[in-house]
Amino acid sequence: MAPTQRPEMRAFEAPREAENLQPLTVPLPSPFALYRGGQLHNARIAYESWGTLNATRDNAILLFTGLSPSAHAAASERNPSPGWWQKMIGPALAIDTSRYFVMCVNSLGSCFGSTGPASVDPATGQRYRLEFPEIAVEDIARAGYEAARALGIDKLHAVVGASLGGMVVTAFAALVPDGARRVVSISGSPAASPFAIALRSVQRESILRDPDWQGGNYSPERPPRNGMRLARKLGTITYRSATEWRQRFGRKPLEGNPLRASPFAPRFAVEAYLESQAERFTRIFDPNCYLYLSRAMDRFDLSEHGGSANAALASSRAERALVIGVESDMLFPIHEQAAIADAFKSAGVPTRFARLPSLEGHDAFLVDIPRFDAEIRAFLS
Amino acid sequence: MAPTQRPEMRAFEAPREAENLQPLTVPLPSPFALYRGGQLHNARIAYESWGTLNATRDNAILLFTGLSPSAHAAASERNPSPGWWQKMIGPALAIDTSRYFVMCVNSLGSCFGSTGPASVDPATGQRYRLEFPEIAVEDIARAGYEAARALGIDKLHAVVGASLGGMVVTAFAALVPDGARRVVSISGSPAASPFAIALRSVQRESILRDPDWQGGNYSPERPPRNGMRLARKLGTITYRSATEWRQRFGRKPLEGNPLRASPFAPRFAVEAYLESQAERFTRIFDPNCYLYLSRAMDRFDLSEHGGSANAALASSRAERALVIGVESDMLFPIHEQAAIADAFKSAGVPTRFARLPSLEGHDAFLVDIPRFDAEIRAFLS
Repeated sequence: MAPTQRPEMRAFEAPREAENLQPLTVPLPSPFALYRGGQLHNARIAYESWGTLNATRDNAILLFTGLSPSAHAAASERNPSPGWWQKMIGPALAIDTSRYFVMCVNSLGSCFGSTGPASVDPATGQRYRLEFPEIAVEDIARAGYEAARALGIDKLHAVVGASLGGMVVTAFAALVPDGARRVVSISGSPAASPFAIALRSVQRESILRDPDWQGGNYSPERPPRNGMRLARKLGTITYRSATEWRQRFGRKPLEGNPLRASPFAPRFAVEAYLESQAERFTRIFDPNCYLYLSRAMDRFDLSEHGGSANAALASSRAERALVIGVESDMLFPIHEQAAIADAFKSAGVPTRFARLPSLEGHDAFLVDIPRFDAEIRAFLS
Repeated sequence: MAPTQRPEMRAFEAPREAENLQPLTVPLPSPFALYRGGQLHNARIAYESWGTLNATRDNAILLFTGLSPSAHAAASERNPSPGWWQKMIGPALAIDTSRYFVMCVNSLGSCFGSTGPASVDPATGQRYRLEFPEIAVEDIARAGYEAARALGIDKLHAVVGASLGGMVVTAFAALVPDGARRVVSISGSPAASPFAIALRSVQRESILRDPDWQGGNYSPERPPRNGMRLARKLGTITYRSATEWRQRFGRKPLEGNPLRASPFAPRFAVEAYLESQAERFTRIFDPNCYLYLSRAMDRFDLSEHGGSANAALASSRAERALVIGVESDMLFPIHEQAAIADAFKSAGVPTRFARLPSLEGHDAFLVDIPRFDAEIRAFLS
């Protein structure tokens, strides 16, 4: 089936790198039943791809993203701007597009071309907003798999994901036990910790209590920007590590701040960093989509599939698994990746658990490229 | 000089334990010049005390609090409700009130009887609000010392403080080198890290962007409660440790939640805990006072006193110092207490650095009483 293009109404600007580009999308089976109830009609998944699918269609790698990125993981002819994993995906890179056909999907429930709360409900002609059914990590996994099937791929060479994507990959392994020969779960979790739940609940509350949220019925011109700013700043704080920031920012003052006149204006360089992260995010991400995906991360519990994480993965037919964790990750602490690795091992899947000493915390997969490159390159080759 | 009582207008309820009680206060020297400029006229410091000052007035212990508590550290005849360090202060307890006269001060800039942004400016008859001059950790230290002097105490047997109070104690040692024979700094810092600054900047922003903040001119009936809720929830998250919460809450669901109908209502027990903390705090704490004290913590840098933390404490005439840190503290990480201990040591002060393995993070001094009792008891006896 040929990929198709379809304009999606979006409440927000597309990511800067994809401006003026409508994403490629494929249809999901319709209706598409959801893990926690409800179903979607005529839903679509946006994706990007690199490399060439071979004749036997067995060289495909499916990549799931974290909470906020689009499917634009790397530059392409269609969109030559750098993607969010630019240094990992390409010819001769760790995810080698001269060997593999790599596809990255925008998560079901997100706002970069895939169907989500910001999409128009074909039944009403209005945006779904809070009428959108609850999205689970399991739905993101299954929708990604269906997107691959829509391109004629029934079995992936590998599924790969980091952060939320690292959770999605474990759900994929539980739900589609023979869907991929290799599995790479990076900085994921078999079930969010109370610390992560608490943080995300505060992020959501900052949006829910922003008067501009309007019970989910905000206008495109006036979304709950203040709430989104706070949510993103808090996220940014927990995506790195205190040690990295001490080295990177220390107590460096903010220079040339025009707001200094205001008594509580930012004074330190680290505050300007948070500010730049928040500004960009509020410009591109839909608040309701954020709420849906954030809740999905809290509720995900791999042990729902059989009573334990080990039971969930017991039927996995993967040939090999790579699980990567980062010692400085406060949001998805490394014992959670250790539990994922143990579950694969107990299923008899030959598993490498890479415990990386990167200082960059949860975001290390985006920053500490040498360490991640080495692990992923060795695993895929 | 006899302590006096003076009603203070307060925008908020007093802490539950002190309801209907006007705090005891003493006057500060007037004018009272502030570390970063400006001065206060007729400012007062609220305090509570336990035990008896001896004839030579050399058995006094001065206690500084964290950001949010009042001076009600323990029950007294005047106010028999339990205080925030009830298990540490009393006859035969670690801070033994049968031997020592213990006084706890409400920080200058706070809202529990001491002069702060919520107090009435005698020059205008109006609340100070943002007209209040900037408060520094150094001012809190000096005001506490002046409060002791107002009771006729020129030299403390010991100064003790935790969290913000742990910072204040280091400022005290720098500013009043022979003001105390012993110094106890608990879970303090010689200078906030960029991680702590980032967190506090988000807490402040949540208040500043709450429309009810009204540029600091909120009404007592309608303070920026949403912003205060978010600030306190975020604080609560960082006051404990992920490990403690995993043991305490795990993924326990919230039971009997009447709000479950709302799609993003709390689902987990940990969220109810945050909620209870936030509710209480927004009822008792003044938002402008919070902003002032939060900023003071960011800006504190012991090295301003001579070029380094070591230089700042070089002239300390303390006879002994105890510095306590907690390994699981993410907000004031233990290397910061190690730096304080090193500075006392390099000043020639015999110093014990206690590195506690408590799981309760920054709040451990309130919770892990056995470990703190043992250290403080041994040090004071």
